[in-house]
Amino acid sequence: MPNRVYLDWNATTPLRAEARAAMLAAWDLVGNPSSVHAEGRDARRLVEEARAALAAAVGALPRNVIFTSAGTEANTLALSPGLRGRSGGPVERLLVSAVEHPSVVAGGRFPADRIAQVQVTRSGVVDLDHLKALLGAGAPALVSIMAANNETGALQPVAEAAKMVHEAGGLLHVDAIQALGKSPLDIKAIDADLATFSAHKIGGPKGVGALVVAEGVAGLEPVLRGGGQELGRRAGTENVAGIAGFGAAVKAVVQTLSEDAERMATLRDHLEKGLLAIAGTTIFSGDVQRLPNTVLFTAPGLKAETAVIGFDLEGIAVSSGSACSSGKVQPSHVLSAMGFGPDVAQGAVRLSLGWSTQVEDINRALETWRKLGNTLLREQARNTA
Amino acid sequence: MPNRVYLDWNATTPLRAEARAAMLAAWDLVGNPSSVHAEGRDARRLVEEARAALAAAVGALPRNVIFTSAGTEANTLALSPGLRGRSGGPVERLLVSAVEHPSVVAGGRFPADRIAQVQVTRSGVVDLDHLKALLGAGAPALVSIMAANNETGALQPVAEAAKMVHEAGGLLHVDAIQALGKSPLDIKAIDADLATFSAHKIGGPKGVGALVVAEGVAGLEPVLRGGGQELGRRAGTENVAGIAGFGAAVKAVVQTLSEDAERMATLRDHLEKGLLAIAGTTIFSGDVQRLPNTVLFTAPGLKAETAVIGFDLEGIAVSSGSACSSGKVQPSHVLSAMGFGPDVAQGAVRLSLGWSTQVEDINRALETWRKLGNTLLREQARNTA
Repeated sequence: MPNRVYLDWNATTPLRAEARAAMLAAWDLVGNPSSVHAEGRDARRLVEEARAALAAAVGALPRNVIFTSAGTEANTLALSPGLRGRSGGPVERLLVSAVEHPSVVAGGRFPADRIAQVQVTRSGVVDLDHLKALLGAGAPALVSIMAANNETGALQPVAEAAKMVHEAGGLLHVDAIQALGKSPLDIKAIDADLATFSAHKIGGPKGVGALVVAEGVAGLEPVLRGGGQELGRRAGTENVAGIAGFGAAVKAVVQTLSEDAERMATLRDHLEKGLLAIAGTTIFSGDVQRLPNTVLFTAPGLKAETAVIGFDLEGIAVSSGSACSSGKVQPSHVLSAMGFGPDVAQGAVRLSLGWSTQVEDINRALETWRKLGNTLLREQARNTA
Repeated sequence: MPNRVYLDWNATTPLRAEARAAMLAAWDLVGNPSSVHAEGRDARRLVEEARAALAAAVGALPRNVIFTSAGTEANTLALSPGLRGRSGGPVERLLVSAVEHPSVVAGGRFPADRIAQVQVTRSGVVDLDHLKALLGAGAPALVSIMAANNETGALQPVAEAAKMVHEAGGLLHVDAIQALGKSPLDIKAIDADLATFSAHKIGGPKGVGALVVAEGVAGLEPVLRGGGQELGRRAGTENVAGIAGFGAAVKAVVQTLSEDAERMATLRDHLEKGLLAIAGTTIFSGDVQRLPNTVLFTAPGLKAETAVIGFDLEGIAVSSGSACSSGKVQPSHVLSAMGFGPDVAQGAVRLSLGWSTQVEDINRALETWRKLGNTLLREQARNTA
C-alpha cells in the first residue's frame, strides 16, 4: 500500500529481511524434524539453530526453550498449576497483574477461584506493596508480571517482584513479548523462572512463540500431548520455517537493539511533544519508564474507534489499544486497572513505532492528528451539547 | 539434495508452488488480522479466504472452521469433555480406536479413567462390533476414529461408525489428516461431528492445522483462551502466511485429487509387486482398502531402524512408521494393536508416495531394497545364529 504510514508495531511488525531469507531456505527442506533420515535431520538443524539463538539472546539454555504457536500458547503453557517452587513445593495459586495480556488474565490452567489480580498504580506500574500483601496472605503462588505493557509501554518492576516472589516460595513468570527487541531482556538478570516471547513483535512471522524456563524449573504440564517434540513439553510437528524465521529475527534484533531503541525514543519524544502541544492531551504512563516506541494518548471527549478509522482513512495505521482481540473496540482493561473510567478508557489511541519508522511518518501522524483531532473533538462536543 | 528419493510423504510433504506463492504474498502484509485498519483488514481477508477454501473442500461452513497450529492442536481441541451430543446431553467419556495418532490416544482433555480403546482387526481396521459393545456399555461418548491410518494407510469405516455413535447419543470425531488429498473427504457424507486436518500433509507448510465442526455442534471448550480470534474458540494471533498457504494447498489438492490418487495407486502397486517378489515379505493391511500412497511392509528378522538408516545412506528417505514422535524408533502401537508382537512391530518400514513421485523413484527404492534387504537379513540371521 503506497504512502501508508504504519504506526501499529505493538500489534505486529513487518517481516525482517533476515527472517524472510531464513524462511525461504527452510521451505526447501521437505523433512519432518522428527524423521531420522537426512531430510529430517536438516529440518531438525534449523529448529535447533533457532533455539540456540533465542536462548543466547535471553540468557537461557537451549534445552529450556520450548517453541509454541504464538505468545498466547506460550502464556497458556507457562501458567501450569503443576509447577513447583524452588524448594520443591507446589504453587497453589496464580497472581497476575491487572494489566497483563488477556491470555494471561485468562489464567491458563488455573481454576478461576485460584486466581487473584495484583493492582497497578495510576501510571500503570505494578503495585509491589499489593503484591507483597497478596503473597503474604496465602500459599506459594505462581506470579505473572509482564516486562512491559503492550498498551502503555510501561516497564514493570520484574526484578524486584522476582525477589519478593521467591522469598514467599513462589515462581515468577514474565511475559516479555512486548519488551523483546526494545529493552534489554535477560531472564537470569531478572531471576525469572519462566518467560514468554513472540516472533511477530520483532520482525519474525505471525504464528510462532516460545516459552523459556530457567534451569531446574519442574512440574510444567504440557498443553499439547501425544508426541515427543520439544522434549515432551509440546507435541505437534514443528513450524520449521516459522521457527527458523523467529531465530533469524532474534539474532537481528539483539544486534541493533541499542541503536534502534535510541532512534525510536528520539522519534517518540518528537511525537509526544507534538501531541502535547495540543491542549488537553494526556499521555498515559507518561511519568514512568516506558518502552522507547509506545505512545498511548487521549484528549477530552475522544472516541478511539472513530479516531482509529479517521487515521486509517488518512493512510495511517494506529490502534485503539490491544489488537490481539476480537477486532471490537472495548474499553481497555489496562486503563480500567489504572483507575480511568470507561469514558477515558474508550478514548485511548496507541501509536507504536519500529525500526523503520521515519521522522516523516511521525510528522504526517502529527499533521493528521491536528486536523483530525480538531474535527473529531468539535463533532464530539456538538453531539454531547 | 541431489539424487535423493523422498518416500516419506506421510510424515511431511514438499511445499506446493501454490502454497509458496500464497505465503510470499502474505508476507508483504504487515497487519494483524484483529486490527481494524486497512493493513489489518488485508490480513483478515487472507485468513477468511483460506477458511472458505477448506470449508468448501470438506463440506463444512466457513464459520465452523477453526485454524490451529497443527493437527496435534486440532485433535486436542476436538477432544473436549464439554461437547454435547445431538440431543443436548453431555458426552461423558471418550472412545478412541487403538490405531489413532498419539495426539488422539493421549485423549485431549478427558481424564484417563474416562478413556477406552476400540480394538482393530489384524488388518488394522476398526472392529465395529467392539465399538458397538463399548457404546452399549455406558453413557454417551465422544468417539474418535481416523479416516485413514498414517502408518498402514488402512481406510476406516467412519460412516458406519457415525451411524452407531449417533444412535447411542454420542458424537464422532474423524482425524482426517492422512486422508485429505488422497481420498475423497466430506464431513457431511460421513456425518462426522468434528474433523481435523493438517497443512503439511498436503503441500502446505508445517505448523498449521484445523478443526472443522458440523453445524450445531455445541460445547467445544477452547484450549487457548484470552482473545476473540476464531470466534472465541482459539485465541492467539493467527499464523496468517501459514493459513494462506494451507488454503492454497487445499484448493490445489482437491483439484487434482482423482488423477493424483490414480497415479499414486499405480506406482504403489508396482512397488508392492516388487517387494512381494522377495520371499517372506509381508505388507500390512494388504487385504483391505487403503490410501493409494502408503506401503508398510516387513520381512522376517528385519530391524526397521537399521533399514531406515540403510535406505538413507543410499539416498532414499523412508520411515519406520509414525515420524510424529521423538525421533526414537519404538515398536509401533498401530502394529501392536493389530496383534503383531514386538519383533514384527519393530521391523516395519513405511514407504509413502506423493504427487511428484516418479516410477524411477520406485525402481530405485526396489533396487536398493533388493541389495539392502539381502545384506540386512543375512547379518541379522548371523547375529541370531
